[in-house]
Amino acid sequence: MHFFDTAIALTPAGDDRFRGATSPAYANMVGPFGGTTGAVLLNAALQHPARLGEPIALTVNFASAIADGAFEIEARAVRTNRSTQHWTMLLTQGDEVAATATAVFAQRRETWSAPEAVMPADLPRPETLARLDRALLPWIERYDMRFIRGGMPAEFDAQEQPDSSSVMWVRDEPPRPLDFASLAAICDSFFPRIFVRRRQSVPIGTVSLTTYFHADAAMLAAQAERPVLGSARALNFRNGYFDQSAEVWSDAGALLASTHQIVYFRA
Amino acid sequence: MHFFDTAIALTPAGDDRFRGATSPAYANMVGPFGGTTGAVLLNAALQHPARLGEPIALTVNFASAIADGAFEIEARAVRTNRSTQHWTMLLTQGDEVAATATAVFAQRRETWSAPEAVMPADLPRPETLARLDRALLPWIERYDMRFIRGGMPAEFDAQEQPDSSSVMWVRDEPPRPLDFASLAAICDSFFPRIFVRRRQSVPIGTVSLTTYFHADAAMLAAQAERPVLGSARALNFRNGYFDQSAEVWSDAGALLASTHQIVYFRA
Repeated sequence: MHFFDTAIALTPAGDDRFRGATSPAYANMVGPFGGTTGAVLLNAALQHPARLGEPIALTVNFASAIADGAFEIEARAVRTNRSTQHWTMLLTQGDEVAATATAVFAQRRETWSAPEAVMPADLPRPETLARLDRALLPWIERYDMRFIRGGMPAEFDAQEQPDSSSVMWVRDEPPRPLDFASLAAICDSFFPRIFVRRRQSVPIGTVSLTTYFHADAAMLAAQAERPVLGSARALNFRNGYFDQSAEVWSDAGALLASTHQIVYFRA
Repeated sequence: MHFFDTAIALTPAGDDRFRGATSPAYANMVGPFGGTTGAVLLNAALQHPARLGEPIALTVNFASAIADGAFEIEARAVRTNRSTQHWTMLLTQGDEVAATATAVFAQRRETWSAPEAVMPADLPRPETLARLDRALLPWIERYDMRFIRGGMPAEFDAQEQPDSSSVMWVRDEPPRPLDFASLAAICDSFFPRIFVRRRQSVPIGTVSLTTYFHADAAMLAAQAERPVLGSARALNFRNGYFDQSAEVWSDAGALLASTHQIVYFRA
């Protein structure tokens, strides 16, 4: 079983309830990597017997640090329409709410379609780039990240940079076929933009993360285990909070997901 | 009382519960303008006696068309930390959930701050531009919108455009001092990008809307009743759904909010 499948595994625990546990393979500075927390919340809806269609939107609010160990998820389909379904999720440890989430699922129909944004052009292929190989944190070891620009600073030298943009190839390590849950986690794999911008390590924590799924299951299956391209940036850093946005592209240049988050920082 | 204050007015109805009603002044094609729905959900947390700090993030999921008339909102502070507070909200009509929302509030501290995105430069001032004056829908009448580019097509001639970008000055009509609730509504005032891109009117409906508040109350008070600048675009249109993102700037060039949504369309 892949580390990721262990991390997002859930056991049914009655109506709308599931049990899971944090995974040491995805440990972060404090508690687990937020990407796996978001993925396991999405997985509760994906696994739910009432589920309709595929995910379109996911928002995860990180209410507190999650303690290593067991947790419970409540996932409720609060509204099911002809082709869409609205979910609310709550992740609890004991009596405490550690995360909340909402998701929209849908059955898509074929329609007029058109890209507007395009993948950055003339990128070096992942096999020509070196993998980030510093053992920074367990969760980072679970990704093969190859930076084209804006990588984790080799040294936190406090030399402020003009911008916080990053472009990287990324896939699960070891390789694993892409699906909605792993794509949701990859959407949180972009390092905090403040590290790239300030080249300083400061305490940070994502407070809210939203992902839009542009791909369907067939597009994800076609991408299989190969690296996807991620491109991330921030708009604004102000008084304890900054945002960041990223796009995730298939290696054929199709937009798979776009993702946005707002992050607390102490400085 | 301003139309907007009427539209977001709530009456306490017991623990964590409030009553409100849709407002004809903000009627949309079907039901009310989504911006006022988002604003009234935010207002439930703003009005709640347990509220801590100011909004940082708001996500609203539109689960169904809202019927004209009364609704009830449940707003619960599911987790209160030292400086942050996490909210879940549910808007119901009878036994049906019509919208769900989550919000994060925070008490900000002064920190290192820096913009990364900058407001588009060399823009014509609003007073030199004509107001959109076609009586399209009641809610549109409640805004003074002055387009610099990408306005509502004068004619839906089905001439597909190369992109869907818009830049506009916008304020409440009649003028009203900017606050978090009105800023949240303005974040949904950008026309569906598919109208701009395809110059065709097709049935659409926002399914999920996320707004990040970069401004605090003092910055909003300083902006007062003057028009803010909005800049919007899409990344991708595919099989029934497209995303759109926008930034809202003060007239002094400070980022007040960034906002993202995913929208259903039929084509």
